[in-house]
Amino acid sequence: MAPPPSTAVSPLVSLIVRILTFACLLISAIILIANTYTQSFQDVDITIKFNDFYSYRYLLSTTVIGLAYTLLQSALTTFLVSTGNRIGGEGMLQFDFYGDKVISYLLATGVAASFGMTLDLKASLSGGSSGVDKFMSKAEAATSLCLLGFLFTAISSIFSAFSLPKRV
Amino acid sequence: MAPPPSTAVSPLVSLIVRILTFACLLISAIILIANTYTQSFQDVDITIKFNDFYSYRYLLSTTVIGLAYTLLQSALTTFLVSTGNRIGGEGMLQFDFYGDKVISYLLATGVAASFGMTLDLKASLSGGSSGVDKFMSKAEAATSLCLLGFLFTAISSIFSAFSLPKRV
Repeated sequence: MAPPPSTAVSPLVSLIVRILTFACLLISAIILIANTYTQSFQDVDITIKFNDFYSYRYLLSTTVIGLAYTLLQSALTTFLVSTGNRIGGEGMLQFDFYGDKVISYLLATGVAASFGMTLDLKASLSGGSSGVDKFMSKAEAATSLCLLGFLFTAISSIFSAFSLPKRV
Repeated sequence: MAPPPSTAVSPLVSLIVRILTFACLLISAIILIANTYTQSFQDVDITIKFNDFYSYRYLLSTTVIGLAYTLLQSALTTFLVSTGNRIGGEGMLQFDFYGDKVISYLLATGVAASFGMTLDLKASLSGGSSGVDKFMSKAEAATSLCLLGFLFTAISSIFSAFSLPKRV
């Protein structure tokens, strides 16, 4: 009988972390997309959305890429948990390792760009209307959830490094 | 005779990557600190520095932490290259792994916060004076160098994951 696929962490734990990542990123994306703010200037309504800001657009891009990747990994891990076989064999461990690394860096930069911009924009808008404040707070909530998603991906990244086949 | 310390990548290559990281981060910090912009408003000179922006302050903090960590790692790796012994033994491999991970995430967030803020600030200041533009461009140069430093740290982080003792 062939030995079980080498992995330092139980696949079930990996799967739970993936599902938590997916949930955080999904809610983050929904909050970000649904967030709008309308202000009237002399009978003209001006609506501000997340895509009026480069940083929020970047945050949404990284979140969507993270969602797609996490969905794929969840499916692969579900298959591993239910059948005990790893699709793609040992080569897949390398894909997990580099994938987790790249996706976690992407999410970290999305979160940081968004937080950095929000903080400095808030500082420059001090004394602004409460509507803008509410818009910013919702964007911060979405960013915080994406931060949680990043932390879970960082944990997955540690797991996948432990599972790497030894090269020496 | 004891076997040589297990490492998948030559210590000399690690050392070169560390030194490149250090150089990028050092120049980045110097450009960021030296960057000022003075404008006269009705006989009053107003000087803008990096520490007037949360994002640039955060970028400098992450760069300084990265510099301290890279200096320590360079010293340890120099010792390993010159004597063939690893200070701290195998336990140090774990320190390298988690250290590289945390520091590379820190640098990534510093770079992203700074780029995100600069982009959105530039968009909102379109048509501003050329002095502000120059200030922003220098800040972008510092951020780009820090981005290079981050990429080198990410490479170190891949090396340290490969060098991890196998846990299975």
